[in-house]
Amino acid sequence: MDRLFLNNSIIEFLKEDIGTGDITSESIFEENQLEEAYFVAKDTFIAAGLEKIAPMVFVAINPDINCSGIKDGSKVVQGDKIFEARGPVLDLLKAERVALNLVQRLCGIATLTAQFVEQVETLPVKIVDTRKTTPGLRILEKYAVRVGGGHNHRFNLSDGVLIKDNHIAASGSIFEAVQKVRARAPHTIKIEVEAESLQQVEECLSANVDAILLDNMDCNTLRKAVTLVNGKILLEASGGINLNNIKQVAETGVNVISIGALTHSAPSCDISMRML
Amino acid sequence: MDRLFLNNSIIEFLKEDIGTGDITSESIFEENQLEEAYFVAKDTFIAAGLEKIAPMVFVAINPDINCSGIKDGSKVVQGDKIFEARGPVLDLLKAERVALNLVQRLCGIATLTAQFVEQVETLPVKIVDTRKTTPGLRILEKYAVRVGGGHNHRFNLSDGVLIKDNHIAASGSIFEAVQKVRARAPHTIKIEVEAESLQQVEECLSANVDAILLDNMDCNTLRKAVTLVNGKILLEASGGINLNNIKQVAETGVNVISIGALTHSAPSCDISMRML
Amino acid sequence: MDRLFLNNSIIEFLKEDIGTGDITSESIFEENQLEEAYFVAKDTFIAAGLEKIAPMVFVAINPDINCSGIKDGSKVVQGDKIFEARGPVLDLLKAERVALNLVQRLCGIATLTAQFVEQVETLPVKIVDTRKTTPGLRILEKYAVRVGGGHNHRFNLSDGVLIKDNHIAASGSIFEAVQKVRARAPHTIKIEVEAESLQQVEECLSANVDAILLDNMDCNTLRKAVTLVNGKILLEASGGINLNNIKQVAETGVNVISIGALTHSAPSCDISMRML
Amino acid sequence: MDRLFLNNSIIEFLKEDIGTGDITSESIFEENQLEEAYFVAKDTFIAAGLEKIAPMVFVAINPDINCSGIKDGSKVVQGDKIFEARGPVLDLLKAERVALNLVQRLCGIATLTAQFVEQVETLPVKIVDTRKTTPGLRILEKYAVRVGGGHNHRFNLSDGVLIKDNHIAASGSIFEAVQKVRARAPHTIKIEVEAESLQQVEECLSANVDAILLDNMDCNTLRKAVTLVNGKILLEASGGINLNNIKQVAETGVNVISIGALTHSAPSCDISMRML
Amino acid sequence: MDRLFLNNSIIEFLKEDIGTGDITSESIFEENQLEEAYFVAKDTFIAAGLEKIAPMVFVAINPDINCSGIKDGSKVVQGDKIFEARGPVLDLLKAERVALNLVQRLCGIATLTAQFVEQVETLPVKIVDTRKTTPGLRILEKYAVRVGGGHNHRFNLSDGVLIKDNHIAASGSIFEAVQKVRARAPHTIKIEVEAESLQQVEECLSANVDAILLDNMDCNTLRKAVTLVNGKILLEASGGINLNNIKQVAETGVNVISIGALTHSAPSCDISMRML
Amino acid sequence: MDRLFLNNSIIEFLKEDIGTGDITSESIFEENQLEEAYFVAKDTFIAAGLEKIAPMVFVAINPDINCSGIKDGSKVVQGDKIFEARGPVLDLLKAERVALNLVQRLCGIATLTAQFVEQVETLPVKIVDTRKTTPGLRILEKYAVRVGGGHNHRFNLSDGVLIKDNHIAASGSIFEAVQKVRARAPHTIKIEVEAESLQQVEECLSANVDAILLDNMDCNTLRKAVTLVNGKILLEASGGINLNNIKQVAETGVNVISIGALTHSAPSCDISMRML
Repeated sequence: MDRLFLNNSIIEFLKEDIGTGDITSESIFEENQLEEAYFVAKDTFIAAGLEKIAPMVFVAINPDINCSGIKDGSKVVQGDKIFEARGPVLDLLKAERVALNLVQRLCGIATLTAQFVEQVETLPVKIVDTRKTTPGLRILEKYAVRVGGGHNHRFNLSDGVLIKDNHIAASGSIFEAVQKVRARAPHTIKIEVEAESLQQVEECLSANVDAILLDNMDCNTLRKAVTLVNGKILLEASGGINLNNIKQVAETGVNVISIGALTHSAPSCDISMRML
Repeated sequence: MDRLFLNNSIIEFLKEDIGTGDITSESIFEENQLEEAYFVAKDTFIAAGLEKIAPMVFVAINPDINCSGIKDGSKVVQGDKIFEARGPVLDLLKAERVALNLVQRLCGIATLTAQFVEQVETLPVKIVDTRKTTPGLRILEKYAVRVGGGHNHRFNLSDGVLIKDNHIAASGSIFEAVQKVRARAPHTIKIEVEAESLQQVEECLSANVDAILLDNMDCNTLRKAVTLVNGKILLEASGGINLNNIKQVAETGVNVISIGALTHSAPSCDISMRML
Repeated sequence: MDRLFLNNSIIEFLKEDIGTGDITSESIFEENQLEEAYFVAKDTFIAAGLEKIAPMVFVAINPDINCSGIKDGSKVVQGDKIFEARGPVLDLLKAERVALNLVQRLCGIATLTAQFVEQVETLPVKIVDTRKTTPGLRILEKYAVRVGGGHNHRFNLSDGVLIKDNHIAASGSIFEAVQKVRARAPHTIKIEVEAESLQQVEECLSANVDAILLDNMDCNTLRKAVTLVNGKILLEASGGINLNNIKQVAETGVNVISIGALTHSAPSCDISMRML
Repeated sequence: MDRLFLNNSIIEFLKEDIGTGDITSESIFEENQLEEAYFVAKDTFIAAGLEKIAPMVFVAINPDINCSGIKDGSKVVQGDKIFEARGPVLDLLKAERVALNLVQRLCGIATLTAQFVEQVETLPVKIVDTRKTTPGLRILEKYAVRVGGGHNHRFNLSDGVLIKDNHIAASGSIFEAVQKVRARAPHTIKIEVEAESLQQVEECLSANVDAILLDNMDCNTLRKAVTLVNGKILLEASGGINLNNIKQVAETGVNVISIGALTHSAPSCDISMRML
Repeated sequence: MDRLFLNNSIIEFLKEDIGTGDITSESIFEENQLEEAYFVAKDTFIAAGLEKIAPMVFVAINPDINCSGIKDGSKVVQGDKIFEARGPVLDLLKAERVALNLVQRLCGIATLTAQFVEQVETLPVKIVDTRKTTPGLRILEKYAVRVGGGHNHRFNLSDGVLIKDNHIAASGSIFEAVQKVRARAPHTIKIEVEAESLQQVEECLSANVDAILLDNMDCNTLRKAVTLVNGKILLEASGGINLNNIKQVAETGVNVISIGALTHSAPSCDISMRML
Repeated sequence: MDRLFLNNSIIEFLKEDIGTGDITSESIFEENQLEEAYFVAKDTFIAAGLEKIAPMVFVAINPDINCSGIKDGSKVVQGDKIFEARGPVLDLLKAERVALNLVQRLCGIATLTAQFVEQVETLPVKIVDTRKTTPGLRILEKYAVRVGGGHNHRFNLSDGVLIKDNHIAASGSIFEAVQKVRARAPHTIKIEVEAESLQQVEECLSANVDAILLDNMDCNTLRKAVTLVNGKILLEASGGINLNNIKQVAETGVNVISIGALTHSAPSCDISMRML
C-alpha cells in the first residue's frame, strides 16, 4: 500500500465529496476552531484501514490534523472507539464522509475474509481474492483481504499469467498455449492454467505448468485432481465457494481457494464519527 | 453523467487492472484478430450501465470497438444477452474485467433501489440516496439509483445544505444556525435541517427552513411531525429504514425517504463475458 | 475556497509563468539568499486574496516562505503595505508575477462589488454574481465577490436549477418544464425560472417555483412583478444593471440582483512587489 | 497556440462550469436532440477566438459537433452572426458559457490592442504585451494580442532575459549583471535590461546588451535615450502608457512599447448564444 | 505496450519539446500545407519503434497524420527509408524531434540486444534486461529488448520477487527470508534469490526457491552451481557480462543471463527526418 | 531546474519502478526500521545530480529521509562515498533504483561534457547541447551539461528561433524567411539561421540575423565563414564533432559548438547503493 499511489486517489475522493466547499459548515464554524472527533464501532468486526488509511484522508485535508487509529486486524465490538483525530473542525468534517466510506468497506472485507479463513484454519490452504474488486480501490481492498488473514491472487493482468478457455481454444491446446506464454512472460512469473476437467489437469501436468485453477469443480473432482497432481503443481479451487461449503472444498487438499465475494460482496461495517 | 468526468476515471480503472499489459493474451492472440463478445446475465435484475457505461470502458481501450447494450432500467432474467462488443480480441479482454466490475455493481444498486421503490409505489414519496457511496464512483452510483426509480439527495457538501447537530450546537440554536447559513449560501440552494425531536421540528418551522431531515424517528413520531408541519416544509425520513419497514415509514406521510444501503450495501449482480 | 482545489491550479499558473526556470534571476542570485518582499498598494481598494491566496502561491514555490497578508475585506489606500513574504529571493521572484496577477484581479472584483453593495446598503437586497467568470478562476472570483459584500449565485450547472427560454420552449410551458425538472433534481436544490414577462411570472406562481429571474425588465415591470408575487417567491432582477441604476432596481423590492460585470468587467487594482 | 496545451485547460474549464451535470437541461431535452446554435455580437469589436478556440470548447464536449466561426482579426458589428455550432442541444448548452467567457475576453483583448496599434500605425513601432495576463490563459491572451495587431514580449521567465533593478543591485552594476546572465543564458536569447535613467542607458551600451526597457520615462527622456543609443540597441518603452499618450511615446523613436493593460484591463465584449 | 500508458507520456514529451509553440515554423508555413516526411537510416541496425511508437507521436499531434513504419525487428541498412508520415507540415515538424529521440534509442536497444542474442543463438539460454532503464521509458525500453530477441526480467518491484543480501541479512538466513516472502507474495509470482556463493546456492535448494540469481560469479563457479542445482531450479547469471564473455557464460548451462547494459548503455542509432 | 516541474516526473518514475509495492522488502522489513544507505562511485567521473536530484527522489518517497550528496561538478574517483540517506529502510529501497538510474545518466552527461570542454579550455568557445535529449528528462540533462562546463542551446521550439533548410525553401530565400520570423517572434529571442554554404552565410549577413548555425562544414569552410562574418554575428558549428576533432573546429574561431552526443550518447557512470 504505497502512499504515492493513494495520495492522488484520496484527493480525488475528497474533491468528489466536498465539491467547491462545505457550505453548511463554512457558514457556522470559525476557521481555526479545534475539535476532537472519534470513530465509534456500531457493530462487531475486524478493523482495517483505521491505522493507516483513515489518517491519510484527514492529513490530505490538513497535514496538521493528529490522528490515531486502532491496529489493522484488531477485533472490534460495538461501542469501541477505534479512531481519533484532532484538528480544525472544518477540516474534520470535510474528511469525515470519505474516511468513513473507505474504512466501512475495508472493515467489511477484512471481516468477511476472516470468516472464510476461520472455517479452514486447521487446514493447509490459503484463501485468496480475485480481480473482482471495486474499480479504483483494488490496492486497498487487496490489503483488507490480507488484514483479514487472506492472501492475494495476482494484482492485475501484467503480474500473473492465467491461461483461460479462450486462450486454450485460440492456441489449439493447453500445451501450445503454455509454450507461447512461456516464450514471452518474464521468468519471474508463474504460469497458471484454468482447467475445467481432469483431462485438462492431465494436459497441464504434461505442459509442466506452475499452477492449475480448477474451475467450478465439485469436491469429488477436486479430490481426483489433487490425487492426480500429487503435490507436483499448486492447485487453486475457484467458483461457487461460500461460507457453507468452503471447509469441504479445503478438505479436498487444494492449496488455494479464490473467492470473488471477498471484495465484491462484503457488507459494509457500521461506523460513525462523533465530536467530543 | 458526464463523459468529461468519467473518461479519466475509466482510464485509471483500466490501468489498475491492466498494469503494464495483459501478458497472457498478448502471448497468444494476434494483434488484429477480431472477435465478438457478449455479456450474459446469470441472475434476475434491473440493468444499469450496459447502455452507456460499459461502452465507455470498451471504447476507452479502443475507439473502434462497436458496442451495444440493453437499455438502462430494463428488467433482465438469467440467460439474457445484455451487451455486445465487437473488436480486436486483445482489447475486448482488456476491457472485460473493469466493465464487469462496474456494471455488476450498478445493476446491483438499481435492483435494490427498485425493490425499495416497489414497496412504496402507491404512495407520494421519493426514495433517495445519501453520500454513503463508493469513493470515486459517486456519479455512477447516483445514476444507478435513478435508473432504479429512486432520486438523488445532494451530490456533495457544496450543492446542498444540511444543518446537523454539531452545527446547531456550535450556533446555539437552529434559528441561529439557519441565519448564518442563509447569509452565506446561494439563494439557489435549499436549507435542510436535521431534527431529532418534535421540539426541533417546531424550531425548524419557526426558522422557516426548506426541508427537515427527521433523524431516526419511529413511525409514531414521524406522523406527529407530518401533522405538525402540515405540508409547509418538505420532510425527509432517515435512519434504520429497510425493505421490511419502508412501507410503514412512507405511510406516515413524509415526502422523502433516504437510504444509505442503496449504495453501500447493494449486492453485486452476476454477469459474465463470453466470446461468440 | 478549498486548498485541495487551488493547489493544482496554482502550480499550473506558476509553471505557465516560470517555464523551465527564471534564467535571469538564477544567473544572479545565490540559491539560499534570503530576502523580504512586500506588496504595496498603488491605488485605493478593498483587499481580497492577500490573506490566503497570495500566501498559497508563495508557499507552493517554497513551503519555507513566511507570508502575512492584510485581512480580506480591509480598505486599503495608496502606499499601504498589504503583504509580506520572507524567504529565498529566487523563490520570491518566481512567485511574484502569479501572486500579483491573481490578487490584482481579486481586489478589483471585491472593490467593484463593494461599490454596488454600497449603493443599496439600506435596502433588503442581495447583490449576486453570475457564471460569467474567468475560466479556471471561478472559485476565487466568487470568493472575491463575497469579500466585497456580495453573495453567490449557483456555482455551476449542477448545483442550481435555472429554467430558461430554451427549456420552456422545448417543454411547451413553464409548468411542464418545472414538472420535468422537479422529477429529476435533488430536493435540496431550488427551482428558479427565467421570466421575460409578467405573464410568465404568473405562470411561475402557478407552477410553484422557488425563485424567478426577472430578465431585462424595466423598473416599472419589476415593481409589478414584486406586487404580483407578494413575497411568496424569491425574485431576482438581472440584465443591464450598473452603478447608476442599481438603487432604482433595488427599490422595486426584488430580493436579489445579479450582475455579470462583477467578475467579467472589474478593473484590476494596481499593486507592486518590492524588496526591503 | 497548441492544441496539446489547450485541451487539458478547456476540459478543466468545462468541469468547473458543468459540475456533475446540467441538471436543468438534462431534465428537459432528449439526449440526441440536434439543434443549431449561433453566437451573435452585441457590440462592435475585433473577433478573436471564434475561429479556433470556441470550436475546441464545443468539440471537447462532443467531437461530433460541427462548428464554424468568423476569422480571427475580422471587424464585427452589432448583430453579426459570428459563430455557429450544430449538434446535440444538451452538448451545445454545456459548452455555451465556457466558450462565451473565453471569446468575450479574447475579443476584448484583440479590440483594445487594435486601438493602441491604430494610434501608431504610421510609425515603425511594435505594441507588445507583458506577463500581466490572467493566470491559466496566457497562451490565449497573447494570441489575442497578435490578432489585434500587437506583438508578444517574452512568454515567461525562461524564454527571455530581463535584468531589473533587483538584479542590478545584487550584482553591483549593470555590467556585472549582464556578464553573469550572459555566462548562463542560451545564446539564442537576447539580454534586455531595465533602465531607469539615461545614466543606466549608457551603462547598457557599454555592457553591449541586446535591448533596453526604458522604465517609466517621460517622452523627453525617451527621446534622449533614442539619440544616445542611435539604433544600436532595441529600445522598449514601458509604464503609464495609454491610448492618449501612446502616439507621443511612439514618436520618440522607441522600437517597442509594452502595455500591461492589453491583457489585464481589456473590457469584455458582449456576445450571446442563441438557438435557431 | 499499452496505448493507455503511452499516450500521456507522449503528450508530455511533446510539450517538453514544443513549449508554447514552434515559433520558427509557425511564422513560415501555412496552417494546412500538407507535406510528406520520411525517416532515413544513417546506420545499420535493428528497427524498433517505427511500426507503432513513432506513429503514436505523430498522431498525438494530429490524428489526421497518416503514418507507416517498418516492422519492428527488421534489419535496416544505411539509406533505408524506414518511416513515412503525411500531414500538415507544421505538425510533422512538431513531432519530428520527439519521434526521432525515441526511436533512435529504441533501435539502439534492439540492436545491442540482438548482438548479445546472436552470440548465444545456438545455446538454450535467454538474454534478459534489468530495472536499469531510463526513468519514464521502461515499458518502451523493455519492448525494444524483446524486439531484439531478448526477454524481460520483472517489470518492477511488485511483479517479481528478488531476495537480495539485505533481505537475507535482515531475516537471518535465506530459508527464513523465503518463508517470509512466501507467506506474503501472491502464489502467481516466483521467488528468486540472489546467491553470492555455492553455499548460498545450496541454501536456496533447501528453501525450495523458484529461481536463483548467481551474482558476479566466474564461469567456473557458475558451472558448479549448474551441476549442484541439476535442472531443479532456474538459474540466472548476472554481473559483468559483455559481448566478449557472454558465450562462455552461456556455455556454463545457466538458463537466463541478465544484462543492465541493454538499456542503460545502448548507443543511439542515427536517423534523420527529411521532407519529400 | 525547478522543483515544481520535477516533482511530478519523479513521482511517475517511482510509480513505474515500484508498481503496487515492493513485495520482497515489505515481506521482510519492519515498517519503521531505520537504516543508513550510501552511494559509492565505482568509476571516475564528474558528479551531477547527487546534490539536488537524488535527494528529491528519496524525499518524494518519504519527506523524513535525510539526504546529503556531493556537490555537483565535483570530481569523483572509484570508491568515493558520494551520497548518503537515512530513513526507513523500506523507503530507502523504494527510492534506490530510480535515484541511481537518474544520477548515473546525469553523471555520464556531465563527464562527457567536461571532456569536450577540456579539449577547448584555452579557446573562447562555448560547448552547447541540442534538443537530442531523452524524452522527459530534458531539464535534467541540460542541467548536467551545465554542470560539466557546457552551455545550453534553446530549450525547445518556443524559446529560440532556428531557421532550417525547409523554412528557407518554403520562404523562397533566407531573407524572406528571416522577415517572416522577425514579424512574429518576440523581440527577446534571437534569430538563428542554419547555413550550409558560404553563399548562405553571406545571405545571413545581409538579412542581419543574430546567429548562424554552420551545418556540417569542414574546418576550412568554417574558417572562411569566420573571416566573412568578422565578429558581427555569433557563429555556431554543428555536425560530426567528436573528442578528436573538436579542438580543430574550435580553432577556426567559431563562438559555439553544439554536440548532440552530449545527451544522446553519454555512457552511464557506475554507482551502487549500499547499506551501512
